[in-house]
Amino acid sequence: MDTDLVIVGSGLFGLTMARRAAEDAGARVLIIEKRSHIGGNAYSHTDPETGIEVHTYGAHLFHTSNERVWEFVNRFTSFTNYVHRVYTTVDGVVYPMPVNLGTINQFFSAAYSPDEARALIASQAAEIDEGRADENFRTKGISLVGEPLFRAFFEGYTAKQWQTDPEDLPASIVSRLPVRYTYDNRYFSDTWEGLPTDGYAAWLERMADHPNITIMCDTDFFDESQPYHRDALVGKVPLVYTGPLDRYFDYSRGELGWRTIDFETEVKPVGDFQGTSVMNYGDRDVAYTRIHEFRHFHPERDYPRDKTVIAREYSRFAGRDDEPYYPVNTDADREKLLAYRELAKDEPKVLFGGRLGTYKYLDMHMAIASALSRYDAIVGPYLRGEDGAQWGALA
Amino acid sequence: MDTDLVIVGSGLFGLTMARRAAEDAGARVLIIEKRSHIGGNAYSHTDPETGIEVHTYGAHLFHTSNERVWEFVNRFTSFTNYVHRVYTTVDGVVYPMPVNLGTINQFFSAAYSPDEARALIASQAAEIDEGRADENFRTKGISLVGEPLFRAFFEGYTAKQWQTDPEDLPASIVSRLPVRYTYDNRYFSDTWEGLPTDGYAAWLERMADHPNITIMCDTDFFDESQPYHRDALVGKVPLVYTGPLDRYFDYSRGELGWRTIDFETEVKPVGDFQGTSVMNYGDRDVAYTRIHEFRHFHPERDYPRDKTVIAREYSRFAGRDDEPYYPVNTDADREKLLAYRELAKDEPKVLFGGRLGTYKYLDMHMAIASALSRYDAIVGPYLRGEDGAQWGALA
Ligand SMILES: Cc1cc2nc3c(=O)[nH]c(=O)nc-3n(C[C@H](O)[C@H](O)[C@H](O)COP(=O)(O)OP(=O)(O)OC[C@H]3O[C@@H](n4cnc5c(N)ncnc54)[C@H](O)[C@@H]3O)c2cc1C
Ligand SMILES: Cc1cc2nc3c(=O)[nH]c(=O)nc-3n(C[C@H](O)[C@H](O)[C@H](O)COP(=O)(O)OP(=O)(O)OC[C@H]3O[C@@H](n4cnc5c(N)ncnc54)[C@H](O)[C@@H]3O)c2cc1C
Repeated sequence: MDTDLVIVGSGLFGLTMARRAAEDAGARVLIIEKRSHIGGNAYSHTDPETGIEVHTYGAHLFHTSNERVWEFVNRFTSFTNYVHRVYTTVDGVVYPMPVNLGTINQFFSAAYSPDEARALIASQAAEIDEGRADENFRTKGISLVGEPLFRAFFEGYTAKQWQTDPEDLPASIVSRLPVRYTYDNRYFSDTWEGLPTDGYAAWLERMADHPNITIMCDTDFFDESQPYHRDALVGKVPLVYTGPLDRYFDYSRGELGWRTIDFETEVKPVGDFQGTSVMNYGDRDVAYTRIHEFRHFHPERDYPRDKTVIAREYSRFAGRDDEPYYPVNTDADREKLLAYRELAKDEPKVLFGGRLGTYKYLDMHMAIASALSRYDAIVGPYLRGEDGAQWGALA
Repeated sequence: MDTDLVIVGSGLFGLTMARRAAEDAGARVLIIEKRSHIGGNAYSHTDPETGIEVHTYGAHLFHTSNERVWEFVNRFTSFTNYVHRVYTTVDGVVYPMPVNLGTINQFFSAAYSPDEARALIASQAAEIDEGRADENFRTKGISLVGEPLFRAFFEGYTAKQWQTDPEDLPASIVSRLPVRYTYDNRYFSDTWEGLPTDGYAAWLERMADHPNITIMCDTDFFDESQPYHRDALVGKVPLVYTGPLDRYFDYSRGELGWRTIDFETEVKPVGDFQGTSVMNYGDRDVAYTRIHEFRHFHPERDYPRDKTVIAREYSRFAGRDDEPYYPVNTDADREKLLAYRELAKDEPKVLFGGRLGTYKYLDMHMAIASALSRYDAIVGPYLRGEDGAQWGALA
């Protein structure tokens, strides 16, 4: 085999690793990708009817404070000056999110100063008996932000996200609820933020575009009918695996829990459906958690003025065949994760990386940062044949 | 005299012109500045008690879509990623400005879509008899945005800005009132925006820092007790004048009207007074038009957490000895302006530039752009001694 490194999965972790290996060590890299396109969940496609860029696996906003990541990604794309903000509809009224001084003053019809608002929320939070705070998510939430804000902005949304009544969720899943006592309603507060100027697909393609990198799409690592499957490769060639950790080990230590999202995408015959890119819906009797309207991610583009693409999001627990999106992370999950980590140590020359391979929610910049540093520490020295470079040690 | 060009006024127009003349034509430039510091109205100082940067002549936000200007200013300073937003307090409630879909939905306690909101405002605007729209500012305003929004967000503020009842202001001063049917509440919509990373004073100093540029502060061009006064210079050396146009001609064609602002600056013993950089006050019984809180311009800086600097702004007509800030621009003003322009044509080798010298409200980037292009067209060719370069022609 004329391959120095095989990477399973062409998401941002896999692509970053491939690029570094190809450029830094001059390695010949083969990427195996199950889907029919590269890029993992960051991928986007152009809606054929409207020409609007649709984030295929849910809205992706790029943001980072990591200078190395920022410089790395800027080799492949420039970024627009889009700054993400989110609104929420609760009981027939729209409010800015995350809950901030503007939300509070709107909700209470007031003009409180930061200190006044802080004092008000503290007094409302104190209304719950101290001993009860740890009973469940609801009592905990009230002890943090008071009942009025909790009911309006956290209770219904959480119930829908978890398909569970907040009184039946453990208090432990929340340690703080975001409330800001300024009018700042930036969703992220990183140094750099924006959307890839020519879209995600173009960015991801450029990362993969290197003579040393070969990609095979529609190729499942566990499909033994194709030559690059697990049993044919493991131990024979250095391997980076970014698929689901439990799947790699045939679920031998149990299934890790994930939440997934169902998207209901629709072209609407109006120029502007909701006036903003993301509208949350806090009411429990509205089945979806939020609606994305993709045109608002690129106000600078010349999109049609009489059509728009929206996607309603419905949150639910993932079955084995669903796309795994957010780790659930119960105590039982964490135990299984530790067991899988033990197994992983014994896999010869396999590095488990990325969101699925480490069972960690990673934002894009974190996936990239993780790939960069694990290349530096493990894959790079090994490929360059440095003295004492041991694949397994840190993997 | 070993000076190739004299510039009256060290504001952004004067500094840009000086820099170009010094660098491009190698000219020896002398800048005469009346104040004890350079930079004109863009200047800022550090509040001695708190270390907070205070914009000495009112809040200055840099924004531009002009690439040449952006490249030019970036030679002297980098810019933070600050994005300006403004809120307003009306009748005891805080709303986002400029009036947008968020303001409308908050004001009407609703969740209107863009089209629904547009239809509502159009129907409210239609309530005024068509013939009455041009009667005065108030009827005109109502015909544009309807009475509820006009009363809440435009009437009181305008009355305070102009010290005049909107019913007594002409309809002609307004052609549109800003209402946005999205949630976008960016105050500016230029490609580039931000604040100078090390502050305005450092930026302006760096512009002036060139071996060919000499600056004399505390030097009034009309003060005949100092050598560089009008009568000593005009006709003898090329001159760029950025002071008030009417003052140059001894008010011989009458005074041009300006509005000015009184600032009431105060250090408050709280970490955060109002939670945002600019809060407007729409109610007529609140004397000030807005309050600035300077710490919020630089959230990235390490400012004290127990003190803050605010400035209340009061708007009024300027007398001859007040700082002229905004041109009033009545019909009478425009007539005087034309008369002064006639006089200006006969001034030998004097170019009238900038905000005061042209009686035009210029944002910083416009003052810079204007200086760059007038250097290219007039001052540059003249200083380089190009064939046929005529100072007066275009000035
Ligand atoms: C709904 C949603 C919204 C998000 N929003 C944001 C956001 O706004 N901002 C942000 O920074 N991040 C966001 N993220 C996170 C972002 O998607 C991840 O950071 C990024 O996808 C991680 O890259 P990765 O390479 O680790 O994983 P992935 O992108 O998941 O890539 C893994 C790849 O491995 C492939 N694969 C799996 N199994 C196999 C197999 N057996 N054989 C071959 N190939 C296989 C998959 O098909 C996939 O292409 C979001 C994620 C989700 C799910
Ligand atoms: C309250 C206020 C807020 C503003 N906010 C913004 C903003 O947010 N964003 C933005 O882009 N722009 C803003 N501006 C505009 C900005 O200040 C101007 O664009 C800029 O000052 C224009 O530069 P200039 O050189 O034309 O004039 P100035 O800055 O006014 O400079 C003229 C200089 O000439 C000097 N001078 C006058 N007469 C004489 C004399 N007889 N002898 C010697 N020197 C003299 C003056 O002292 C002054 O230093 C604001 C302006 C004001 C007034």
